[in-house]
Amino acid sequence: MSRSIRLAVIPGDGIGPEVVAQGLKVLGAALPSDVRLTTTEYDLGARRWHATGETLPDAELASLAGHDAILLGAVGDPSVPSGVLERGLLLKLRFAFDHYVNLRPARLLPGTATPLAGDPRIDFVVVREGTEGPYTGNGGSLRTGTPAEVATEVSVNTAYGVERVVRDAYERAQARPRKKLTLVHKNNVLVHAGHLWKNVFDAVGREYPEVTTDYLHVDAATIFFVTQPERFDVIVTDNLFGDILTDLAAAVTGGIGLAASGNINPAGTYPSMFEPVHGSAPDIAGSGKADPTATVLSVALLLRHLGYEAQAARVEDAVAADVAARDGSVRSTDEVGDALVARVTA
Amino acid sequence: MSRSIRLAVIPGDGIGPEVVAQGLKVLGAALPSDVRLTTTEYDLGARRWHATGETLPDAELASLAGHDAILLGAVGDPSVPSGVLERGLLLKLRFAFDHYVNLRPARLLPGTATPLAGDPRIDFVVVREGTEGPYTGNGGSLRTGTPAEVATEVSVNTAYGVERVVRDAYERAQARPRKKLTLVHKNNVLVHAGHLWKNVFDAVGREYPEVTTDYLHVDAATIFFVTQPERFDVIVTDNLFGDILTDLAAAVTGGIGLAASGNINPAGTYPSMFEPVHGSAPDIAGSGKADPTATVLSVALLLRHLGYEAQAARVEDAVAADVAARDGSVRSTDEVGDALVARVTA
Ligand SMILES: CC(C)[C@H](C(=O)O)[C@@H](O)C(=O)O
Ligand SMILES: CC(C)[C@H](C(=O)O)[C@@H](O)C(=O)O
Repeated sequence: MSRSIRLAVIPGDGIGPEVVAQGLKVLGAALPSDVRLTTTEYDLGARRWHATGETLPDAELASLAGHDAILLGAVGDPSVPSGVLERGLLLKLRFAFDHYVNLRPARLLPGTATPLAGDPRIDFVVVREGTEGPYTGNGGSLRTGTPAEVATEVSVNTAYGVERVVRDAYERAQARPRKKLTLVHKNNVLVHAGHLWKNVFDAVGREYPEVTTDYLHVDAATIFFVTQPERFDVIVTDNLFGDILTDLAAAVTGGIGLAASGNINPAGTYPSMFEPVHGSAPDIAGSGKADPTATVLSVALLLRHLGYEAQAARVEDAVAADVAARDGSVRSTDEVGDALVARVTA
Repeated sequence: MSRSIRLAVIPGDGIGPEVVAQGLKVLGAALPSDVRLTTTEYDLGARRWHATGETLPDAELASLAGHDAILLGAVGDPSVPSGVLERGLLLKLRFAFDHYVNLRPARLLPGTATPLAGDPRIDFVVVREGTEGPYTGNGGSLRTGTPAEVATEVSVNTAYGVERVVRDAYERAQARPRKKLTLVHKNNVLVHAGHLWKNVFDAVGREYPEVTTDYLHVDAATIFFVTQPERFDVIVTDNLFGDILTDLAAAVTGGIGLAASGNINPAGTYPSMFEPVHGSAPDIAGSGKADPTATVLSVALLLRHLGYEAQAARVEDAVAADVAARDGSVRSTDEVGDALVARVTA
């Protein structure tokens, strides 16, 4: 646990800068006073692309690499062709910095409105693979734009890549009271990738005899997310299934306004990156309506990753208390941030 | 509308035969008395595979092709390695018979229990592509079972394949009161396939000026399924996204006990196949607990496909009335079938 933190900040587009500002406020309030926090801001995203055509120049990638962690708001705008910023910036960062653990907790905090009936108990975490699967950019298009076009997308899965994320998931399951790990895939159709995942999952599992395991096809998993979410403890899954499942998980735990994520390089060879699951929401940008809570919870993940466990818990407790105290009155982005700072420093 | 129907029946495994028996009962009751229904049963599935090692021999495939339609219960059993029956039987049928429209209605019938809070209105239909995408079986594994394994899955998408299913979806949207069609994909990451889908969707849309269109990433779509399902009318999507979304759709409309599907060859070059979305549920096979309603609703889709619109509506009305009258008392598979027959013939 270092006494100085060099944090790279990518506010991004839309509501990104607004929620990041609150995240930084809470981070500053939570850190012990003797910890020296220095932040470097990077102007990356839609505005930059429009101005210069650049998404993530090599020099900036190298500069980002010299930090202890990255906090990202959101990138993307309808004015930019779909895929340009996702592939050229967000996924480029995840791949370049080998963020093979995409960590996405799903907790229904008391007092949160959920679209589910009854009073579901939801407290699980999704360990989404972050550097393989259908996200590798493999594939292409032949005779593009003609009636004879063929477009392919290749999901690439390696024993190396699957083993390390599966192991990380077992470690997390082992450390939780319920010690249960569910593999989600679609091995009855995607037989090659699916069998690789299942074989590795079973093999690594032999090293964790205390962890109870389970397998679900991704389609069946979505059913249990809404009918029996309490059955999940830790889920490990591929990049695309993880993308889909964590939006659904966010929806049932109160919405993407509350969903945090960490793109983690557990080896520490590159900085890990923390970001809310939500997008840039250009429709509400500038209106002060954005809920910064997902970013603040991402800051908690950042604190935990850097070794500040007590501070991470303090931020999470502040969020839980804030959510429990919500009475339906409308607060601005800034007011929510202030309320969280007040609770963290109380 | 022919006065004779040659129906191929594949009861399959687990609860498959039990629910198919009820489906046939209702079919017989719904058809006009002068329609000659002949059924041929095919012994395909786990039992057959264990006994002979066969999944779907060419002779049987050819024989199935000589029918007007196929009714399938469910195939699969934990005793069969994952993928064997899915790829060797179920998907083989969908591909051999060019079932490019996988039609999956999602309606929340009054009186049905839904895991969603409030009183959601759900009435949409998913047009899932059935012959391309990640389901083609392209891909493979290198150095299988070693720490150096690489496994790939290739999603194959053609303008030909996308155009025909997108057109079918526009036709369906055009015929519905709301005339709204949503494309679901992930074109910010799967840029090649995604752009093909989006370009074809936009191009075909110019021929349907009355249809309102919309695009959603698959992850965002799952959120709206639970928070705002009323926003959907017709959805068109790829094979894998459609698989995932329709299980979720089934979950929010009362469970897979009620979810019907048609694997349709609109050109009529091969028989279309109708099946419940649920699996073989070996845990409850033989107990009389299986709900045959999904199969009966699949029979309604079959009737409509063969031109018996009035009879299809009668079966659907019978199901709606049965569901509305449910009082929580437990009925056997057979009792539900009898109740539906009684309503259809009333
Ligand atoms: C924006 C997009 C590339 C991204 C993803 O698909 O991973 C997002 O949906 C997420 O979940 O972080
Ligand atoms: C059994 C499996 C191959 C199948 C699919 O993935 O299509 C099923 O989930 C379905 O939705 O009909």
